[in-house]
Amino acid sequence: MTILTALDYAAVLVFALSGALAASRAQLDIVGFAFLASLTALGGGTVRDLLLDRNPVFWIADPTPLAIACTAAVLVFFTAHLLESRQAVITWLDALALPIAVAAGVRAATETGQSVPIILIMGIATGCFGGLLRDIVANEVPLLIRTGKLYVTAAFAGAGAYLVSGLFWPSDMLSLAACILVCFTLRAGSLLYGWQMPVYKPRSPRS
Amino acid sequence: MTILTALDYAAVLVFALSGALAASRAQLDIVGFAFLASLTALGGGTVRDLLLDRNPVFWIADPTPLAIACTAAVLVFFTAHLLESRQAVITWLDALALPIAVAAGVRAATETGQSVPIILIMGIATGCFGGLLRDIVANEVPLLIRTGKLYVTAAFAGAGAYLVSGLFWPSDMLSLAACILVCFTLRAGSLLYGWQMPVYKPRSPRS
Amino acid sequence: MTILTALDYAAVLVFALSGALAASRAQLDIVGFAFLASLTALGGGTVRDLLLDRNPVFWIADPTPLAIACTAAVLVFFTAHLLESRQAVITWLDALALPIAVAAGVRAATETGQSVPIILIMGIATGCFGGLLRDIVANEVPLLIRTGKLYVTAAFAGAGAYLVSGLFWPSDMLSLAACILVCFTLRAGSLLYGWQMPVYKPRSPRS
Repeated sequence: MTILTALDYAAVLVFALSGALAASRAQLDIVGFAFLASLTALGGGTVRDLLLDRNPVFWIADPTPLAIACTAAVLVFFTAHLLESRQAVITWLDALALPIAVAAGVRAATETGQSVPIILIMGIATGCFGGLLRDIVANEVPLLIRTGKLYVTAAFAGAGAYLVSGLFWPSDMLSLAACILVCFTLRAGSLLYGWQMPVYKPRSPRS
Repeated sequence: MTILTALDYAAVLVFALSGALAASRAQLDIVGFAFLASLTALGGGTVRDLLLDRNPVFWIADPTPLAIACTAAVLVFFTAHLLESRQAVITWLDALALPIAVAAGVRAATETGQSVPIILIMGIATGCFGGLLRDIVANEVPLLIRTGKLYVTAAFAGAGAYLVSGLFWPSDMLSLAACILVCFTLRAGSLLYGWQMPVYKPRSPRS
Repeated sequence: MTILTALDYAAVLVFALSGALAASRAQLDIVGFAFLASLTALGGGTVRDLLLDRNPVFWIADPTPLAIACTAAVLVFFTAHLLESRQAVITWLDALALPIAVAAGVRAATETGQSVPIILIMGIATGCFGGLLRDIVANEVPLLIRTGKLYVTAAFAGAGAYLVSGLFWPSDMLSLAACILVCFTLRAGSLLYGWQMPVYKPRSPRS
């Protein structure tokens, strides 16, 4: 198993759990859980593969991610009632999946020989679009646009860390670890301690 | 005309009618009707063709579906005021279009030699994404996530019926008929008699 | 620089300003501004390139549009507080970007030798999908479905003007100018003077 495959699988698993929990909030049935879990889990990587014209799309080439997503959905269907606050768990699963998916995105872009800006974008897109699709289809306000939380910024910093690390160490494993660490630290710090960048503060929020 | 073309045309017609009715609820003008009708009618098949890298996309290869969708839009623009409840008619047109689109999806995946899980997914995606795009763009809660109604489940069962039927009968026509029959029966039974799968029941719906 | 590149750049700049202003309404940080600006600016052309299977997507082939979008985002981040009504400015930037993006769409479709209906659709899709993605991700009611305003209709008329003009004058520059002029005039007239097509008027809006 290549690094990229392992990263794709890991991101799929964690995003699928968050998607299945979103399905539990919408009170769907078990197939609805599998649908929303798969959409969340495969969405970011699918956007990446379509944009990069990687053919076939990763989960068509190898349906293991589909199996992972559906297994995660079944697991959540039978255990979600044990959780105290599903929204908090969704947020934290999403925070864990985001860095892994960003790493999968930068890695795929590097493999196909893209330039630096495209590597950055593919990291951000792979990380962000799964959760974005989940929130839009489940009719929730996207986590990505919640004010005063680092989300795209964390993805961007992670992708940046991958590139900077690559300048100093020749090891791809180290660069991917740096990416995941930086992205997760920023996102987790934002959720736990309110770390944020200066946000635009209008006089009246919706004028 | 091949079976796949016929199925694509039929799904396009019925989905276009539902999209045009959604446009009437948003009080758009006639070009807005054609836009929303086309998006609904072509959305599912377009997602399928992009994922399967079928080139060119079906309605670029042959613009007949566009003509069908626009004709349906014009028809609805001048007759929608005759309907008692447009939301009910949208739901039923959607219920009719879903099985046909699922059949078009499994058929296209079979033609391009996909594996069993991908055939299932393509059936579900072709069936579900047109209506999903319609509801998201028209700013409505997606039909797909309404609690206690079979939607993705009906699509999944239809695609499954196609595959199971193919094991016993060599006729593709029979398998497609089984797909449409199973999917429509489940969706219609869900709408008429409240048929449903057990849904996840949280203690508090949005915690 | 070809005409198409120039049009793509111009549409990117103006759509990016509108996307960044939408980010200011959601009170995002500067990376969030760049994300929403890029999504708005590149969305329409990306949909066009995926549908037409133009490879690589325009901003992967040449990352200048990304640089333009990010520059626009930074500019807006530091100046948006100077604006009286950001929603009005978003609407007008969108009204300016729409005609240019429609022109970029018809031009790209013509270059790849598409038929007349596909040229029309690509004009409309390139024009409309950027703003649509912006509004969906920013969790706003899409400008495109606001009742009694010409939006898709203006895009359609602009694309039509390009085709009609091409029948009479052999100059592509003239045809593109006609496209932009017609589309902008209709959209601006709709916003300023309430120009509209007859809209569907139901007895009760949401029955």
